[in-house]
Amino acid sequence: MTDFARTRAAFHLPQGVTYLDGNSLGPMPKAAAAKVSAMMTDEWSEMLITGWNKAGWFDQPRKVGDRIARLIGAGPGQVVMGDTLSIKVFQAVSAARALRPDRRVILSDSGNFPSDLYVAQGLARAVDAELRVVAPEDVADAITDDVAVTMITEVDYRTGRRHDMAALTARAHAAGALTVWDLAHSAGAVDVDLLGAKADFAVGCTYKYLNGGPGAPAFIWINPTHAEAAQPILQGWMGHAAPFAFDLDYRPAGGIDRMRVGTPPVIAMTALEAALDVWDGVQMADLRARSIELSEAFIKGVEAHCPDVTLHSPRDPAQRGSQVGFRHPQAYAVMQALIAEGVIGDFRAPDVLRFGFAPLYNDLDDVARAVDVLAAILRDGTWDREDFHRKAAVT
Amino acid sequence: MTDFARTRAAFHLPQGVTYLDGNSLGPMPKAAAAKVSAMMTDEWSEMLITGWNKAGWFDQPRKVGDRIARLIGAGPGQVVMGDTLSIKVFQAVSAARALRPDRRVILSDSGNFPSDLYVAQGLARAVDAELRVVAPEDVADAITDDVAVTMITEVDYRTGRRHDMAALTARAHAAGALTVWDLAHSAGAVDVDLLGAKADFAVGCTYKYLNGGPGAPAFIWINPTHAEAAQPILQGWMGHAAPFAFDLDYRPAGGIDRMRVGTPPVIAMTALEAALDVWDGVQMADLRARSIELSEAFIKGVEAHCPDVTLHSPRDPAQRGSQVGFRHPQAYAVMQALIAEGVIGDFRAPDVLRFGFAPLYNDLDDVARAVDVLAAILRDGTWDREDFHRKAAVT
Repeated sequence: MTDFARTRAAFHLPQGVTYLDGNSLGPMPKAAAAKVSAMMTDEWSEMLITGWNKAGWFDQPRKVGDRIARLIGAGPGQVVMGDTLSIKVFQAVSAARALRPDRRVILSDSGNFPSDLYVAQGLARAVDAELRVVAPEDVADAITDDVAVTMITEVDYRTGRRHDMAALTARAHAAGALTVWDLAHSAGAVDVDLLGAKADFAVGCTYKYLNGGPGAPAFIWINPTHAEAAQPILQGWMGHAAPFAFDLDYRPAGGIDRMRVGTPPVIAMTALEAALDVWDGVQMADLRARSIELSEAFIKGVEAHCPDVTLHSPRDPAQRGSQVGFRHPQAYAVMQALIAEGVIGDFRAPDVLRFGFAPLYNDLDDVARAVDVLAAILRDGTWDREDFHRKAAVT
Repeated sequence: MTDFARTRAAFHLPQGVTYLDGNSLGPMPKAAAAKVSAMMTDEWSEMLITGWNKAGWFDQPRKVGDRIARLIGAGPGQVVMGDTLSIKVFQAVSAARALRPDRRVILSDSGNFPSDLYVAQGLARAVDAELRVVAPEDVADAITDDVAVTMITEVDYRTGRRHDMAALTARAHAAGALTVWDLAHSAGAVDVDLLGAKADFAVGCTYKYLNGGPGAPAFIWINPTHAEAAQPILQGWMGHAAPFAFDLDYRPAGGIDRMRVGTPPVIAMTALEAALDVWDGVQMADLRARSIELSEAFIKGVEAHCPDVTLHSPRDPAQRGSQVGFRHPQAYAVMQALIAEGVIGDFRAPDVLRFGFAPLYNDLDDVARAVDVLAAILRDGTWDREDFHRKAAVT
């Protein structure tokens, strides 16, 4: 059994704060600042350029990738770190589409995170492809035989709705298409099984449930079936077969290493390493069970005490990630009032209160406090704008 | 007058080390570790998600960009930080080429850093363009009227040869082409004047002469003439006109902000901020004068005491950046012997000893020691391979 008291104790959680926004930015692991400081002082400062070999900076994107692989159902040597999620989406979708050169369509859904859609629009314009966006519930039927690749975020950033990765992947393969899965709201939140689902490409960020810090590097995974065939469009020297031979022509490195681009962000990746230390010993089945326990308790509590909000997330936990959305006409003001009381979730337009439950550090006390404060705010009307501004002036 | 004793004192330079490899990775500013630690502990840890506004993380890529603008002859609001240099090269070249849609040729030279060539090859394949690579001395004549964009690194990473930015830009404009300048070995090393040269696009990294740390974020500049017309190919949410409106369609932000892509690397950028503090008060004309003084003294010393090496850099300082290369048939082994003696430069294939002179912290004592040690190694033959391996086993 995973010891969630140990994992909770590993984070700095500010006094008086109930933090339910780890799906936006995870809190700082207590060990992170010292680990980064040591890297800077003992490695950068003393080793200087030799740190690339002596301190292992050059291999860090793969070593860290291996630690993330375990959390998403991937194998060792299949994940590499770098850049940002938007860049990794671009790499994955472009490489997948290039494996289906006779097809023009990139299929996505309107519940996808907008940046993924923007990235695909830019790519489509450049390489003469077409981005087709359907409603989330229509994705399966929309995988027709002109689709080169599906670009789907597994867990919806507003509703928490979780797509069935295995079923949609099977559907895509039956139609001759490939799949790119964005795990932004999945990695570290649910029990992802990339190899089991026979997914083709996956990408994700590490500053949400993985707690790597603001702007922590992203990851990319390619199913070993495609790893030697996938041709990167962003051809950087760190993805070259021999980066230090300084050839004038690009030759992709073997496997996932070809998805490296430029010089890796060593300082940021060291903060992420501290965050991944907390994941050692965490079993993903336990994580999923605890996530469901917390989310269900929250829904039950809110529905019992807050008649003015309506559930925006699927009621069936099997169809949800680790977040819960409720709608309220004054959601923005209500969320500001919650934050003023130390209950931090976030607002998503037009009217969604979003609460993330991170099993690594949230517990049933957090759930109870969030329900109590939300109920009091709605009951007493302290979410009205004037009151909020008065409070904001005091704090 | 710039106080270079102050700037030198601001860096941690390990005991016994003469560091002439700042053109690969700059040393750590003494204040950097504490500044990063404070950001993590006071901002990430305490402010959590609210740090994006409260601590100014969201605006950091522009604020830091403004500080770099001053060092490269650009104006405020024209530079933005993010990603890596290879990604920024991709953005600049793709945007420049899109402004010349009727032309297919991206022109570069064989002295360019290979990653730039790899990036252009990947882009050219994707968007049906052609990368044409000529010898550095042939660039001007090769700017024919089928060239959409020149992609030139101002200072050659091996020889230190400096292209004439103003002259080549004028030549490109006369032929109807645009220019992308890679400032990897220029920013913080020479007196770059982007606006004066009427350059179109520029990109650079910050871990070399700017001392931002391993994998520090890159920068991109667009001449205001093009900033509203340049269409990004990497369309990420941070470059959207309204990132938090979560529209399904991309609309580029005004000006250089459209070249932002994903979530910015706050921790890494904070280390860079500490490095930029050292630049406050440094005048670029003083920097250039000191760079020439150091490089000239080194060439003179080596040529007087080391008959077995030949100068690989231009003799005229006006045609050089802030580094000096010498050729030697056993350059690799010689460099290892130098490093073993604490004189750190680097080796570039096939036979180049490369020494960078960073005016911010190198001085004439460094030059004298490097000359003495190189002369002794070559005179005594302590660069032979067996001896190197014996030494390596001891240290």
